Amino acid sequence: MSTDTVAPSLPSPYALSPEARELLFTEARTASKFTDDPVDDDRLRAIWELFKWAPTASNVNPLRILYVRTPEAKDRLVPLLAPPNQAKSASAPVVAVLALDTRFTEHLPTLYPAIPQLKDAFEANPELREENASFNSALQAAYFLLAVRSVGLAAGPMKGFDAKAVDAEFFPDGRWRSILVVNIGKPAPDAWSTRLPRLEYEQTVQLV
Amino acid sequence: MSTDTVAPSLPSPYALSPEARELLFTEARTASKFTDDPVDDDRLRAIWELFKWAPTASNVNPLRILYVRTPEAKDRLVPLLAPPNQAKSASAPVVAVLALDTRFTEHLPTLYPAIPQLKDAFEANPELREENASFNSALQAAYFLLAVRSVGLAAGPMKGFDAKAVDAEFFPDGRWRSILVVNIGKPAPDAWSTRLPRLEYEQTVQLV
Repeated sequence: MSTDTVAPSLPSPYALSPEARELLFTEARTASKFTDDPVDDDRLRAIWELFKWAPTASNVNPLRILYVRTPEAKDRLVPLLAPPNQAKSASAPVVAVLALDTRFTEHLPTLYPAIPQLKDAFEANPELREENASFNSALQAAYFLLAVRSVGLAAGPMKGFDAKAVDAEFFPDGRWRSILVVNIGKPAPDAWSTRLPRLEYEQTVQLV
Repeated sequence: MSTDTVAPSLPSPYALSPEARELLFTEARTASKFTDDPVDDDRLRAIWELFKWAPTASNVNPLRILYVRTPEAKDRLVPLLAPPNQAKSASAPVVAVLALDTRFTEHLPTLYPAIPQLKDAFEANPELREENASFNSALQAAYFLLAVRSVGLAAGPMKGFDAKAVDAEFFPDGRWRSILVVNIGKPAPDAWSTRLPRLEYEQTVQLV
């Protein structure tokens, strides 16, 4: 090959290494089937130690996690999932039920000590509180998924489950409310479906 | 120092490098003040080329981005922000208005070709459609923030703005609805406040 057919080496726009971009974004995929390799406590904690730092509005941090790992606990969860999802979670060594804490405001004096009136402001406005809990717990769910990938595991997030039944089974006091179920583990060789398309840049981005 | 005071070298639970963990999570901070360094089109596109791959439920991808970069456009946006946020955005070389596409269902035949009935299912159920758009656009907003950090820039996400006024000013046809404003650029030396606390692992995680 003649050297003048080689494209000039442009500086990369990324500060993140190619390996990290592949691990988190470009090569990462939603897994549907897992190996039997167990996931230990250290790795579950490492996920949290990473994603906890990513930002939420007013630092409210409303996301909570229930890790379902024992066979007994999985037997309680799996029947509450949509039928096409049951085999996926049954094969996962650990399944995270991500939930929002409906009483997240109790922690605001700890989380935002400079603004002590924040707790009362949220508690006086149920609509604001609900909107805030929903939005910020979803932000944190996304950080969580990338943190799972950061510990070298595959994540399989699923919206298809009976949230009311999951809450009744695992959160009977009504404080936590489930928002997403995430299968976690080493992906099996046949864990992947065909990658789904994305929209084009011009369909989703405007510049003024 | 005697070698027997050195802790044993345990294997890291992370597949992501220390540098990447710092860039995205552990050392990254919400910036409030920026240098004048411009942010070029290539970098704005690189953000999108990364975060677009992270998952959404049913692959709906409802997030849209308006990059506000010209002085004229910034003059239209800044007065619609909460007063404490105006100087932050005024100093940022580019400000992203993240929005959800209220008609995201139109793209579902492209995004999920294997299930052609998905579009009709969503369109027949306004509550499901709204919940789906809200949840998934928030997931994508989180991916976006980490992608900004991936191109070596600081992000300053803000919920404090007049969303109705921003929508009227920039999205008058009513299709896009703003959910978050994000200042983007190189952080100024005095860009940072004290880091806010996080909850403890035991307060937020349960294992069964």
